[in-house]
Amino acid sequence: MSDIKVGLFGLGTVGEGIVNVIAKARNANAEIKRVCVRDASKKRNVTLPKEKITEDRYEILDDPDINLIVEVINDPDAAFEIVSEALKRGIPVVSGSKTMIARHLPELIKLQHENNVSLLYDASSCGSIPVIRNLEEYYDNDLLLEVKGILNGSSNYILSRVFDHNEPYEKALQTAIDLGFAEADPSFDIDGYDSLYKLIIITVHALGVYVAPKDIFTYGISHISDFDINYAREKRVKIKLVAQVVKLADNKFTMFVMPEFVTKSRYIYSVDDEYNGVVIRGECYDRQFMFGKGAGSLPTASSILSDMVAHHHGYRYEYKKMGYSDVPQYTTDILLKVYVRFSETPVPELLPFAEIQERYVSKSVNYVIGEIALSDLMKFRGVLDRPDVFIVNFSRFFEDLDQ
Amino acid sequence: MSDIKVGLFGLGTVGEGIVNVIAKARNANAEIKRVCVRDASKKRNVTLPKEKITEDRYEILDDPDINLIVEVINDPDAAFEIVSEALKRGIPVVSGSKTMIARHLPELIKLQHENNVSLLYDASSCGSIPVIRNLEEYYDNDLLLEVKGILNGSSNYILSRVFDHNEPYEKALQTAIDLGFAEADPSFDIDGYDSLYKLIIITVHALGVYVAPKDIFTYGISHISDFDINYAREKRVKIKLVAQVVKLADNKFTMFVMPEFVTKSRYIYSVDDEYNGVVIRGECYDRQFMFGKGAGSLPTASSILSDMVAHHHGYRYEYKKMGYSDVPQYTTDILLKVYVRFSETPVPELLPFAEIQERYVSKSVNYVIGEIALSDLMKFRGVLDRPDVFIVNFSRFFEDLDQ
Repeated sequence: MSDIKVGLFGLGTVGEGIVNVIAKARNANAEIKRVCVRDASKKRNVTLPKEKITEDRYEILDDPDINLIVEVINDPDAAFEIVSEALKRGIPVVSGSKTMIARHLPELIKLQHENNVSLLYDASSCGSIPVIRNLEEYYDNDLLLEVKGILNGSSNYILSRVFDHNEPYEKALQTAIDLGFAEADPSFDIDGYDSLYKLIIITVHALGVYVAPKDIFTYGISHISDFDINYAREKRVKIKLVAQVVKLADNKFTMFVMPEFVTKSRYIYSVDDEYNGVVIRGECYDRQFMFGKGAGSLPTASSILSDMVAHHHGYRYEYKKMGYSDVPQYTTDILLKVYVRFSETPVPELLPFAEIQERYVSKSVNYVIGEIALSDLMKFRGVLDRPDVFIVNFSRFFEDLDQ
Repeated sequence: MSDIKVGLFGLGTVGEGIVNVIAKARNANAEIKRVCVRDASKKRNVTLPKEKITEDRYEILDDPDINLIVEVINDPDAAFEIVSEALKRGIPVVSGSKTMIARHLPELIKLQHENNVSLLYDASSCGSIPVIRNLEEYYDNDLLLEVKGILNGSSNYILSRVFDHNEPYEKALQTAIDLGFAEADPSFDIDGYDSLYKLIIITVHALGVYVAPKDIFTYGISHISDFDINYAREKRVKIKLVAQVVKLADNKFTMFVMPEFVTKSRYIYSVDDEYNGVVIRGECYDRQFMFGKGAGSLPTASSILSDMVAHHHGYRYEYKKMGYSDVPQYTTDILLKVYVRFSETPVPELLPFAEIQERYVSKSVNYVIGEIALSDLMKFRGVLDRPDVFIVNFSRFFEDLDQ
């Protein structure tokens, strides 16, 4: 008899990985009791007895024998319906749905408290790297100053092809799609939303504050041009898509997702290909770096397995930091030093730079380097969305300390 | 009123760090009630009210108001006396004493069970890097295959001066002592014992098996010569002091501490200076890399703080893996590929190599490269201890997979 009786929602890449990982992890003593899928007739890469597969979610939700629901479906709305229904019924859930969790975390926390039931989701951020659990349990004090990292494997794979293998961006993007590192519609990854959702979840466990997606500056890599790539190469830096949450003072913090010039001396410089890497900086321990496979069927499934076993041993997130007496406030009132490249759009006239430090003009391409408030980048976002414009951040926070 | 009322044993580098860290971490709500030291009259770098300092351990052990003992003294025998006495009295303990823990872990686990009391010691392995907690809680299943890393900052600092800064070994050693990275008697660090004790603790939480120090091959870097350094440089590799525990099959594992040739493609190649780096390899998540400050006053103290807060929230090690149905057996019956350098000692005649693959002979220095059983390295240890002999391991396990 198994201790953990799983009702699994979703049998895509991650769902199949979970079936395989559970089979390998004998001491976990877990068993998949039933799997709910959208199309039971679809051919799968794993063999499961036919009677275990259903299209009716209530065959799982109503089954008193199932003591844990694992939810790894792609549709965030359906995922929220299923997870909130399960929590209301007092059924614990392990989920890997970052979009759903990032959008609904305050409600999901409330549901956990009201129904005295646990929701774990370490797999939702950085796959197999145990970021959430460590932020919640180990970096569980106010020494934490910053979490910064490469949270999206697809965009990092593309940028890595460009900067380490000298491939043109378009070719690298196509290779990523062909290899399955990026979706056929890659905008979720390359426009920074995948990183954003992970950053939102990380911030709840890092600083005890939930910030809604719409309030966070998120800018991806899809406008990058050969000019930008050459500019970075000449300066011997790489452009990487970086997500960060940074404490500015005891009572203030900021967060955003944005391409960044990364110098060789920084830990994230060497996070290549589809890997993820996270730097956790604190007041006494300086920088810690965690590195590993951020996505993929088995790495994500192994993280789900860790959460399943942790739940079985009574573990739950306590969201301790949300109850701190001096929870810091989110602000976008901070100056960033940025590079903005443009051709037709009169960027220096449209964006309210506090200071322009460099200006390059040519017949086809121009750029400015200057300081601008993050709040103004959000206010004048339309300018940055024009197809001839691309913005890259210089890492300015704690420049003297930075690695 | 504070929630955590600490009785602190030891006010050396780490103890002072704890006083400082507790002052910074306001939300931890901890207070140092009393500190026991060997010499109360000694001048300290932290200011504590005089009445808080005592030389009598019972002023802490008998104080009903103290709800947590933090033990960071240097003497392992005294540490064991204090910690076991505290556990017998049902007082929970956070300890950073790796030697004491590695030597007495079976008894300490028994004392925890018998007295239903918790002992946490994440700081004892790799300072601020949360290795123990992650092995215990996150990599808490039988997917784990290997933990390998640079666990000692002093020896790594010395080797880093040699390989990255072209300093002679003797000068590097002296610099390490001058900077406080190594003790005046540096043998504990450079002969591998510090790494060994950490590896023993790691193995209990990685695989659920305790192996006594005397049963583990431990060989340090003190015999390294310019010849070895040049040999490594010519091959474009670094020599690093590596501790590893490796599953060989479902039912077998091995472990040892030994210098190793590390190629550029491996994660630990870039662990330089006084840093520690640990690679955790598993069946589904491949390799995860954790990197950070492994020692020092504040990094170690921040790890102690994490354990203090974790204890306050009810956390304790469950040693789950020790109860698995198929705990693997320790073996030294495995062939290693090694380089052995010598001058007078007739190494090829004295060591029972299974195969010699390369042999270099000159007037002053010779070496052989060949395969030899780990058990034979232990049996003929005396040969390796001769002053003209030095051995370096080639990383052979899972060569195809290795990074």
